[in-house]
Parts: sequence; C-alpha cells; structure tokens
Amino acid sequence: MRLAVLGVGLIGGSIGLAARRRLGAEVAGFDRERANLERALDLGALDRAAGSLSAALDGAEVAFCAAPVRALPDLVAGALEAAGPETAITDVGSTKRELVDGLASTPGAERFVGGHPLAGAETAGVENARGDLFEGARWYLTPTAGTGGIHYDHVQRAIAGLGARPRAIDAAVHDRLMATVSHLPQVVANALVSSAAASLGAGSEWPSDVGPSFRDATRVAGANPAIWSDIFATNREAVAGEIDAIAGRLGAAAELIRGGELDALDAWHRAAGEDRRRLLEAGRPGGPLRELRMTVSNRPGIVAEIALALGREGVNIEDMALYPAADMRTGAISLWVAGEREAERTAAILRGLGHSVALVPRGE
Amino acid sequence: MRLAVLGVGLIGGSIGLAARRRLGAEVAGFDRERANLERALDLGALDRAAGSLSAALDGAEVAFCAAPVRALPDLVAGALEAAGPETAITDVGSTKRELVDGLASTPGAERFVGGHPLAGAETAGVENARGDLFEGARWYLTPTAGTGGIHYDHVQRAIAGLGARPRAIDAAVHDRLMATVSHLPQVVANALVSSAAASLGAGSEWPSDVGPSFRDATRVAGANPAIWSDIFATNREAVAGEIDAIAGRLGAAAELIRGGELDALDAWHRAAGEDRRRLLEAGRPGGPLRELRMTVSNRPGIVAEIALALGREGVNIEDMALYPAADMRTGAISLWVAGEREAERTAAILRGLGHSVALVPRGE
Repeated sequence: MRLAVLGVGLIGGSIGLAARRRLGAEVAGFDRERANLERALDLGALDRAAGSLSAALDGAEVAFCAAPVRALPDLVAGALEAAGPETAITDVGSTKRELVDGLASTPGAERFVGGHPLAGAETAGVENARGDLFEGARWYLTPTAGTGGIHYDHVQRAIAGLGARPRAIDAAVHDRLMATVSHLPQVVANALVSSAAASLGAGSEWPSDVGPSFRDATRVAGANPAIWSDIFATNREAVAGEIDAIAGRLGAAAELIRGGELDALDAWHRAAGEDRRRLLEAGRPGGPLRELRMTVSNRPGIVAEIALALGREGVNIEDMALYPAADMRTGAISLWVAGEREAERTAAILRGLGHSVALVPRGE
Repeated sequence: MRLAVLGVGLIGGSIGLAARRRLGAEVAGFDRERANLERALDLGALDRAAGSLSAALDGAEVAFCAAPVRALPDLVAGALEAAGPETAITDVGSTKRELVDGLASTPGAERFVGGHPLAGAETAGVENARGDLFEGARWYLTPTAGTGGIHYDHVQRAIAGLGARPRAIDAAVHDRLMATVSHLPQVVANALVSSAAASLGAGSEWPSDVGPSFRDATRVAGANPAIWSDIFATNREAVAGEIDAIAGRLGAAAELIRGGELDALDAWHRAAGEDRRRLLEAGRPGGPLRELRMTVSNRPGIVAEIALALGREGVNIEDMALYPAADMRTGAISLWVAGEREAERTAAILRGLGHSVALVPRGE
C-alpha cells in the first residue's frame, strides 16, 4: 500500500512511522520545510521525500494532510487537485465543520474525508514522532452525503491499520463535542490563571505547593499557543456558546453559595459528582467483538450514512469491511462492535434504517 | 511534651502519629465516636483515649481541634473553656475568617490560633492516617492582634515538629487565597461536568478517551461532599466574588472568540500561559518548570518505580499527570521538574531505565 503524508511534523511523522511498521506501507512525504523531510527520513518515518504535492501523491491510496488548521483548506484543495481519482484525502485538524463545509463544492470533494485523531495535538516537531502515538486512540472521521464509500473505506482502514479506532461523526457534532470536552476547558484554564494572577498582587502570598485542584484545572493554560488561536477561530460559535452556558451555571452557583444553605450546597455538589461519574463511564468498551453483515446498494454516500447513523447512537464501530459485488451495484458490508448487547442494539438500529442485517454467529 | 487531639479522623490521627514518632510527644485523644478512639489507639496514633474534653486537655501544651468545619466553633469554644491557661488551642479547618472572628470575644481567645494544613483535606477516616502526611506541607496559621505570643509560638513549633512548614497569614487573606486556588477551581469543576452532562444528551457521543484537559479540569468535581458545603457556606463572599470575577473574564473571552481575530486570540492565550508560569514559579527554586513526557505500559507499580528511581537520584518531581490510553494497557505520563539542566538530567535517568522520553519544548 502507498500512503502520502503532506506536512511532516509530530502527527505526520507518527503516521509515517506507524504506517511503515504496522502496515508495511510505502510512505511518501511532502513538506515545505526541507529540514522536516530530512529528519523524517532519518527517523524512518518516510520511504521517500517528494519534491512536490503531486510527486508525494503519485499512486497513493490515502493521503494525510497534517498541517496546522489554518493551512488545511489550501492544502486539502491542492491535494484534491493534484491527486488521481484513486487517492482518498484526509486531514488531522482539530476542528472540522469550517474545513468540510468550505470544501463541499470543490471538484473532487467526494474523495475527501475530514479526520481528527485524539492524540498528540502538540506542535512539537517531527523529532518527537512515535509509531505508537495512535495506538488505541479515537480518530474521528467526518464523511458527508457526498463522500465516496470506497474513499471512506480506504481512509478508515488505513487509520485502523495505524492502531487507532476510527469513528464517523457529523462535522458540526464533532466541533460541538470538542468545544465541550476540550476547547471550553482550555478557555476556563486560561481564565482561572489570569483571574488568580489578578487577585494576587506582586509579592503577595502564593503557595508554591498550591492545591491540586488549581494545578489540575489550569495545567493546560496557555499551552500550545500555535494551535489554539486557529482552533478558537474555526470553532467560534460552538466555543462561545459553551462559554455562555458555563457562565450561566457559575452565576447560579454564586447565588447558591451567597445563600449559604448547607443542604442546597450539598445537593449541588453531589449532583456534580454524579455527572462526572456518568460522563467518564460513558462508552467504556464492553466485551468480545461481534460481526454484523449486511448487503447494500453500492450508491455514493451509503457507507457514510450508515457510519454516521451509528455514530449518532453512540455505537463504536471497532472494524468495518466492504465487499463490492461483481456487478458493482451492490456490496456486502461487515461491521464489528464490542459486546453481545451492543451488537444486538446495532443490528436493531440498522434494521430501523431499512437494512437487512445478520448477526454472524460467534466463532465464524 | 503533651499534646491533645480533639477529633480523631484522618487529620487528627495523622497528627497523633507524627507527634508521637517525630516529637516523642505523649498524645491524648478525644472523639465523640468511641470507635475512632479505639482505632487510633490500635494504630499507635494515641497514647491514651480520654473520656472527656478536659481529660484530653489535661496538661497539654497544644490541642488540635480536628473536627469538620461546621463543628469547629463549638469544639474550639469548649476546648478554650475546658483547658488551662498553659494550653494553646488550634484547629485544622479549611476556612478561617468566620471561625476566628466568631471567637474573638470568647474568654480565653488569646490562647487560640486558627490553623489550616494543606494536606489530606479528605473525609477518609482515621484508618488512613499517616505519620508523614504533613511532611513538607504548608500549614497556615492565622493569629490576630489578640493572640498570645507564647501560644502562637507553641503552636508553630509543634507544627514544624510534625514536619510541616508553618506560615502566618491574616484569616481573611487566607480565605481569599483559598477561594482563588481551591474553592473556585472546585466550583468550576462542578460547573464544567454539569454543563457537559447537559450538552450531551443520553446515548450521544461521549469519547471514553476524553481529552486530558477535561479530565484534569474536572478531576475534583463532586469530590468529598461532606466537607464542601461547609467550606462554601463559611467562605461565601470570597468564593462568590471569585466566581463573579471569572464569569466576567469568561464573558470577555467569549466576545474575543466570537470576533475570531487570530492575533488577538493568540495574544490572549499566550498571556494566560505567562500568568500560569508566573504563579507556579512563585517562590520556587531552580528555574522554570519543564515537562517530560513518556509512554509506559500500564502495569501496577510502574509509577512508583519511576518516582522511586527519580527520588533516589534526588530529582524533585514538581508535578505529575497520568493519562491512561483507551486500551488501558499503556498510558502517557507527564512529569514536571524545575530547571533546564534538571529536566535534561531527569530525561537521561529515565532513558537509562529504558523509557522513551520527550522533553516538551518550552511554550508548548
């Protein structure tokens, strides 16, 4: 298999290492910084350093655009233009809606699938690349109704081959989710430290062994400045909406605390503990893999449709395979999910969409 | 030296253990729960279990009131009444102003010094008591203009003898400081989880490998419910004031983000990073913090192994964070040490143990 990595930093380099080691892929790299290519070659992250986008893309089954968020629209558009029809293009940016919407009417957009691995969102250079960076990590993919099934399949197989766990999700849903679990905590951390720095004048007491809650809550404050302005700017509405929501909750908490009623304070505090437990326990993996098999018409968008529907219901597709029939008008799809009950739930969802689904007996 | 411990839970028991081992003190304990006294005796945290306050206080140089915050006013007043003029009384509550102000006109108030160790603020029982709980920990004392010098001296000597680092601070300043570094982060953690639970409906996508920033920021959400309603209720104004301040900052951040100007976002984010560095470096020897990151197998004992190896080499780990991978078989560990040379020395030690370690570039 041939893969292309366009942009060779920590993420691109780690993709190259994992693809070569785990998939035995032949990896071509392109980067505007020649030094990054040299280092990547030295580290064994690339088989060859290409002199241009098209040279890197030549014969590639999947191309990973691994540039900073602000550079992605041009890079992906350039890759779509330079690549042949057999090459699926994906990216690794932390926000997805603006990019995906912006490319919708670009010629060849059916070959693009937005992506976001939850790993190594650092700006550290290629010298920190690791072949196991994506091992077990969630990797979101954001296909649309216009995405080609075969292209989606190639991307998700490559990603699973890197050791990651792909999951399809709507781009806007992805961005709201990231606003909740990542972008808002970042904003809050920034606000906490700046508020603390303002309350504590120069030379005043500041415990060097400051409590674990402040330390934990502000660990990321100001981290990775090179990536965050891009993230905030490309996820403006979702992040600002989350900030409004938490500001409202904080106002209510201030009122509750000013009231000082012990029972009310206790109930509020305990409810937060319950919320946290529920959130962190959600979606834990649950049992041996089960295979579901279905036959579908081979029309564009069908794979994305199924993957997104399952993603919306919180089904974690551990693996997926497409088997086009000889006539290319229909095809079989196999899906693997973890656990008996999850397999039955998944089958029910798919049947609800009008598909005929067989749960393959265990051991077959 | 004779000491009295009034209230024998985690803190009281740990005071008893440390006082007997480190100071060779004779420790008498009193608790309304007879079972706590029995366990404390079994653990060697007390020399004798007293049947009353006065019996425990008899001949004591210092008495530690180690009850929940809401029980302290009565306990301290009772101890002042029951104790002779030679006994200094202190407490270990997490808030100080209400208690200290409330006792100001109590007869014998010159014998009371408010106290707050930054250690073990748990409600775990005496069975978790440890003789080294206060080793190197900050222990605030809040003397007033009415505090007897000799009583203050006895309290602070006893505390230093337990291994802690006493520091005098005005009670109201203490409460504002705690509001900033501990109570506000607790409120924010609660609000973050509840906001996330509300945005994410039942069955919707919730990444089980949720990002480290959310995990860190909400680690304490809902923790130790038995102590927090008391803390909020007795530090109402300072906590509510801090909440108002951060809500204002969050509103400004939402506006900045809605504006979407990259340079302004970047400047705001970098300023927060500077604020955090400044806060955490305050009073810290050895230079700015550097982060080392490594991936390890998630087997039992691995963290202890690393910490002990570094301890043997005299490396001071300023902070540490663990991020288990989704598969729970591996995990990332971040360590922070102070100073460039110390960071490089630490990395070399860890590499010598066979780990692959990345020194995270500054400002990332």
